[in-house]
Amino acid sequence: MLSKEAKDSIKMIRSMKESQKDSLKAELVPDIRKNTDKQMSVEVPKSLKLETINETKFSGELYHQEMKQDSVLLFIHGGGYATGTVKSRRDLCFRILSRVGFDGFSLDYSQWPEAHHPTAQNETVASYLYLLKRYKNIVVFGESAGATLALTLTLQLKRNHQKLPDKIAVFSPVITQLNIMPSEFLNNERDPMLIGAGDPVPYFKDPAAHDELVSPIYGNYKDFPPLFINCGSEEVKYDDSVVLNYLCQKANVDVTWKVWQNLYHVL
Amino acid sequence: MLSKEAKDSIKMIRSMKESQKDSLKAELVPDIRKNTDKQMSVEVPKSLKLETINETKFSGELYHQEMKQDSVLLFIHGGGYATGTVKSRRDLCFRILSRVGFDGFSLDYSQWPEAHHPTAQNETVASYLYLLKRYKNIVVFGESAGATLALTLTLQLKRNHQKLPDKIAVFSPVITQLNIMPSEFLNNERDPMLIGAGDPVPYFKDPAAHDELVSPIYGNYKDFPPLFINCGSEEVKYDDSVVLNYLCQKANVDVTWKVWQNLYHVL
Repeated sequence: MLSKEAKDSIKMIRSMKESQKDSLKAELVPDIRKNTDKQMSVEVPKSLKLETINETKFSGELYHQEMKQDSVLLFIHGGGYATGTVKSRRDLCFRILSRVGFDGFSLDYSQWPEAHHPTAQNETVASYLYLLKRYKNIVVFGESAGATLALTLTLQLKRNHQKLPDKIAVFSPVITQLNIMPSEFLNNERDPMLIGAGDPVPYFKDPAAHDELVSPIYGNYKDFPPLFINCGSEEVKYDDSVVLNYLCQKANVDVTWKVWQNLYHVL
Repeated sequence: MLSKEAKDSIKMIRSMKESQKDSLKAELVPDIRKNTDKQMSVEVPKSLKLETINETKFSGELYHQEMKQDSVLLFIHGGGYATGTVKSRRDLCFRILSRVGFDGFSLDYSQWPEAHHPTAQNETVASYLYLLKRYKNIVVFGESAGATLALTLTLQLKRNHQKLPDKIAVFSPVITQLNIMPSEFLNNERDPMLIGAGDPVPYFKDPAAHDELVSPIYGNYKDFPPLFINCGSEEVKYDDSVVLNYLCQKANVDVTWKVWQNLYHVL
């Protein structure tokens, strides 16, 4: 049984879902990002030192631990390739960093409407190769669309025979852009975070492309690094995790899948 | 536990699946159809009278019961819009007719490589409208790709505000042409009939079209006639039935879904 507080939260979050019903308007995106930042952004804690990175090919926030680190967490936020921001996901990033003790780099990748695929993909690869010069070990974390990028980054590195991340952890991965998995329908009324079976996100001009860098359901996971999948039992993207876990198991990847009971997309 | 005979049959059928591994070559299709006819065709029993129909817009075999009937079964075979034939599915059609006692019309619709979508769709609609002039009641049966046509026929009739079939029964329906449902992966080694997660069938030039007449997962099932769904528990198309049943239940359709334990696609 869910507590009254939990039920109230769900009700509140569900109202967010209602607001997604109309398709996302390009002109509203900047305000959505600004509001998300206002509501969710936190200061960088004193235990971390912020280095703002503005390279030609990518930008983002690098958070340094007090002691010099060999390892860095490449943190890739979600937001449907449109509404996510680095600042609004600082809290989640800092929580992970306080657990693992690494430095962290949160990638500020380009999204719709300013950009289309493969801009974010290219920025992700560029940031990874940059971090590879500064750190010995790279662990990649991504949530939702950021999880897609964590997977497509690694698939592209594999294709190019480049050094792969040491480990990957994903929350609520999205492995097809078409939103037709059974859970999109069956969990639609249970997941207050996302509309199920909706239109593909506008960032991809060809969301149906049979391309592992668009929909990692088409990926070859042979020799993939250890992967930790998290998802909610009630989420519309549940079946994306089902299939990702299966593909990795069939390819003998060291994959661990944790289903969080009674939880939703990303939350 | 499966019997030795059942296991032997599965082994034999599995060898058919192996032969699907290379993508279907257009020049082989006529021979495949010929062989299927040779192996599976049966004579029309004495209790039925065959009338060969060759209309401008469609053709097929009309089987008359001895007594004049008010009701006809529109039978639509499967075969991935390529390799199916009317003659090879006579046995199944006659078994159904002997149960229901109706006349039956088995549609000989155009397939790849001779045709592409929407040829078969148009022929199905034309045959239905023809039968509507000759019979009071029409029940539609379709298996696999024929199940898709049974659904897309009805969705198009609904769209055109035309009289709908009285009832529909489908075996192993296919409701998306993209082959990315979880069961395509998870049941791939269990289903000896079909390769899971394979390429879309070549009959559709745009298999990803967001069009209910290509992929009835996008259909609106409000006011759909009573629907009886059959599928095998082990089939790669299992999740197509999951979602079709769900869509119909949400639309208050009188839908019944029967899962045949330990059985496969169509078989």
